[in-house]
Amino acid sequence: MIETPGQGLHEITSDVAGVLAGSDVRDGLCVLFVQHTSASLTIQENADPSARRDLESWLGRTIREDDPCWTHTAEGPDDMPAHVRAMVTDVSLSIPLIDGRLALGSWQGIYLCEHRRDGHRRRVVVTFVAQG
Amino acid sequence: MIETPGQGLHEITSDVAGVLAGSDVRDGLCVLFVQHTSASLTIQENADPSARRDLESWLGRTIREDDPCWTHTAEGPDDMPAHVRAMVTDVSLSIPLIDGRLALGSWQGIYLCEHRRDGHRRRVVVTFVAQG
Amino acid sequence: MIETPGQGLHEITSDVAGVLAGSDVRDGLCVLFVQHTSASLTIQENADPSARRDLESWLGRTIREDDPCWTHTAEGPDDMPAHVRAMVTDVSLSIPLIDGRLALGSWQGIYLCEHRRDGHRRRVVVTFVAQG
Repeated sequence: MIETPGQGLHEITSDVAGVLAGSDVRDGLCVLFVQHTSASLTIQENADPSARRDLESWLGRTIREDDPCWTHTAEGPDDMPAHVRAMVTDVSLSIPLIDGRLALGSWQGIYLCEHRRDGHRRRVVVTFVAQG
Repeated sequence: MIETPGQGLHEITSDVAGVLAGSDVRDGLCVLFVQHTSASLTIQENADPSARRDLESWLGRTIREDDPCWTHTAEGPDDMPAHVRAMVTDVSLSIPLIDGRLALGSWQGIYLCEHRRDGHRRRVVVTFVAQG
Repeated sequence: MIETPGQGLHEITSDVAGVLAGSDVRDGLCVLFVQHTSASLTIQENADPSARRDLESWLGRTIREDDPCWTHTAEGPDDMPAHVRAMVTDVSLSIPLIDGRLALGSWQGIYLCEHRRDGHRRRVVVTFVAQG
C-alpha cells in the first residue's frame, strides 16, 4: 500500500526492494500489478527530476482535462484523463531478479504514477516467480 | 479464441476466470498474450460504460484514420491506426493470482481491444505460473 | 546486448529465439526487459516495413523534438522525446512458450525500439519461467 501525495510520478524502487528482501527467490521475476484504473506504473530515469516533470507535463498536454469530448465526468475533470493516462502507461511490470537483486539498468527507477489531482492510498501487488 | 463484434473495448474478465477454473495454480500469475498486431489488451474501469467509450474516442481522435502521413494503407484506412493503438496499449498483461482468484482491484475489468472497424476472431494465450 | 544502428524499430525475434535455444523450459514464459529509459520494446507487424516506418513517424509527430515545453534538454533535443516514447511503449514483454517455441502470432515480430537518433548498445535481459 502506497500513499501518493498527489498527481505525479512517485519513486517506489526502495519499497519494492524492501518487499524483495522477504522473498526466497534469487533468480527469476518480480512482477508488480497496480489494482487501480487511475494510477499506473512506469520505469523511468531516476537521476534528474526534470525528466519526471516533463513526462508528467507531456501527459497533461496530450490528455487534456478540458477536452470537450469527455462524457465520463461525474467524478470530476481529472478522472477521465486519469483513465487514459493509465491506459498508455503500465498496469503490470515484470522486472528480472538476478542474484536476489532487481536487475534494473543504471538509470532506471520504478514509479507509481498518480493520475488524479489528489493523493490516494494505492495498492500494488508484488509477486515473485523463480526462473527455469 | 474471442469473437469481437467490431471496434471497441470488449470485456473478457469472465472468459479469463473460466480458463483459470481449469488450472491448479492457486498463487502466482495469470499472463495474457494477444497474438495480433491490430488488437490488444488493457485493464480498465468496468463500472460505467462511458469510461470505455471515452477511452475509445480518445484513441480515435489521437490516432486519426485520416492522417495524411500514413503510407501503410493497403489494408484500408483503419489498419495503420490499429497498429499504433496496439503499440500504445498492451500485448501482454500479468495479473496476480491469490487463493485461486484473479487479484483485480474493485473496479478493474480485463478488456480485449478490437482496433479494426470490423469484428474478428482474436486469439489470446493464457499462461499460469506458480509463485515462489 | 543489441547494437542499434540508430532511431527506429529493429527486429530482434531471431536473437530472442537464439537465447531460447539454450533454455530447458518447453512451456511457460519468455520475459524480456530492456535496461534503458530511452529504448523500449514492442511487438508489431513484421511483414511490411511500411508499418514500422509509420509507427516510427507517428511517434515523431506526436512526441515532438521541438516541443517548447521540454526542460530536460541537457542531453540534446532527442533525449526527452525518447523518454516519453519509452513510457508509451513497453519496458517488459511476456511471450508464451509452447512446445519450446515462442507462441507469436503469424504476423508478430519482437522489436527493440531505439528512441535516440544515434545507435547505442542496448541490454535486454531474457528470463524463462516454466508454467504450472
